[in-house]
Amino acid sequence: MKKLINDPENVVDEMLDGMVAAYPDRLRRLDGTNVLVRNDAPVDDKVGIVSGGGSGHEPTHAGYLGNGMLDGAAAGEVFTSPTADEINEMIQACDAGEGVLCVVKNYEGDVMNFDTAAEMAAMEDVDVEQVVVNDDVAVEDSTYTSGRRGVCGTIFVHKVAGAAAERGEDLAEVQRVAEKAVDNVGTMGMALTSCVTPEKGEPTFDLGDDEIELGIGIHGEPGVERTDMMDADEIATELTTAVLEDVEPDGEVATIVNGMGGTPLSELFIVNRAVQDHLEDESIETWGTWVGEYMTSLEMAGCSVTVLDLDDELKGLLSDPANTPAFTV
Amino acid sequence: MKKLINDPENVVDEMLDGMVAAYPDRLRRLDGTNVLVRNDAPVDDKVGIVSGGGSGHEPTHAGYLGNGMLDGAAAGEVFTSPTADEINEMIQACDAGEGVLCVVKNYEGDVMNFDTAAEMAAMEDVDVEQVVVNDDVAVEDSTYTSGRRGVCGTIFVHKVAGAAAERGEDLAEVQRVAEKAVDNVGTMGMALTSCVTPEKGEPTFDLGDDEIELGIGIHGEPGVERTDMMDADEIATELTTAVLEDVEPDGEVATIVNGMGGTPLSELFIVNRAVQDHLEDESIETWGTWVGEYMTSLEMAGCSVTVLDLDDELKGLLSDPANTPAFTV
Repeated sequence: MKKLINDPENVVDEMLDGMVAAYPDRLRRLDGTNVLVRNDAPVDDKVGIVSGGGSGHEPTHAGYLGNGMLDGAAAGEVFTSPTADEINEMIQACDAGEGVLCVVKNYEGDVMNFDTAAEMAAMEDVDVEQVVVNDDVAVEDSTYTSGRRGVCGTIFVHKVAGAAAERGEDLAEVQRVAEKAVDNVGTMGMALTSCVTPEKGEPTFDLGDDEIELGIGIHGEPGVERTDMMDADEIATELTTAVLEDVEPDGEVATIVNGMGGTPLSELFIVNRAVQDHLEDESIETWGTWVGEYMTSLEMAGCSVTVLDLDDELKGLLSDPANTPAFTV
Repeated sequence: MKKLINDPENVVDEMLDGMVAAYPDRLRRLDGTNVLVRNDAPVDDKVGIVSGGGSGHEPTHAGYLGNGMLDGAAAGEVFTSPTADEINEMIQACDAGEGVLCVVKNYEGDVMNFDTAAEMAAMEDVDVEQVVVNDDVAVEDSTYTSGRRGVCGTIFVHKVAGAAAERGEDLAEVQRVAEKAVDNVGTMGMALTSCVTPEKGEPTFDLGDDEIELGIGIHGEPGVERTDMMDADEIATELTTAVLEDVEPDGEVATIVNGMGGTPLSELFIVNRAVQDHLEDESIETWGTWVGEYMTSLEMAGCSVTVLDLDDELKGLLSDPANTPAFTV
């Protein structure tokens, strides 16, 4: 598998330098770490919002650093949790005295290291709270999790929490709205191809020329069901139906049609057309939709569909300005 | 080759519907055509800026519709020029009486059909001017062109022309700054893999597991040189050196590290790191850089490097606000 990399061991280090080189006025790297923070962190009079996890999901998470979303993003090696030490450094760098909310995707390593880091930061008198995102409706337990996995719905949690923090809400209130977003969001993904990690250089699972995987995660783990190839409309219906059964929206929704890394934007729009048609058939009104690559799995071809059930409060928070490399309102 | 599509014949039609479904408050489709325009087109007291070309390069061009960039984008079938009739309809829909500038990538079909459309629109008393973008430094003539191909540098031309139009400049002045951008921009691309068109379902060229193509275009045509696999730093140096020899910047530059469709963002940042290092070694200062997928070739893995030599006027125009699905300032 050919990749645009140098030494596989340096992929994360060089990627982070390349991000800072792309956005030198927005991001900086904490010395000697794989943590990126907003240039102006800690931001006065604002709860800090941080996240992190394994690399290979770009633009997650560092692409969401900036006004109205995240203050800090800790990057682990590819598909590997960041260390508790580095998460702790990030929390402290993003605390302006108002406390810090950690948005954590539900993987055992991430949850454990964020827990440890929160304890370390608390010993330095930082108020730290955590929300765990578990939006993947495909599996209850997986290779990497007890309970459901955290996937693309995390972007909505970043947005909602970031907006509340930017409004000057206190830590408890920011945590409350973030939990509300977690409670109301669901995602399901599928793959046409596996991904290939830089270290291994081989597909993490094999998939035939006429097969697809439904219910994949974002770490190259196979899905919950292997089926024959379907067309885009059928795939969109399958994913959207599964998410709606879980989320059970009773009002307007926000949706994300997310590319897994190797799928052209044209195909994501074809999927979005089918997703929106399906929602209309179900008499569910879409208040806003995002189509693009938000949480990827290296060069995997495939997509996920995310649905967030909205109320007026969530709509307001999603509408607030956000100015980050990968998400702008 | 598996794709997230339905009938290959409906790819463009369904993609355009999916784009409008994603941005219903920003875009609309001209009835019975493959033309998308800004919802508020024609914009009063403003020169219209339009572009177009074959599909398969998304977000090019419709992703750049909006305030500060394009008013209209005509989509042909995949890698096929839009028709003169549809381009003419677009020009007329985007003319508010101040005239229309067509930004055309240098491919024979595109240039011919835009020429014909301009004549048709002129008969309806629309002032139409054209700039032809030919930024690809790899080849003088190619399968599709006499002269150099138009590739990712076109995004800078959209931005510069769009900003001048938004300022209220007249058609001649908008054309002048667009030509200045064309004169000062160069691009070179490379591929790790071929792309696969929906109609054919097979790679348009074959490339070994240890080979890459330098100097590729955006239509699945092979490049000008096939070489052994190189690492990201070597590839970045090769591309940047070729572009700098052509552009010969004497001041600050703006750069784009563009993904061809199937390359993860992490790899593009690794390339950006090397590009920026190379520029620094050459004592060339980067005023701004963009890293992402701006002009793709379906799911091709690879990248291109674009360099625009700047003066104060171009910096000002690049700094003006732009609010489009794929490009925001």
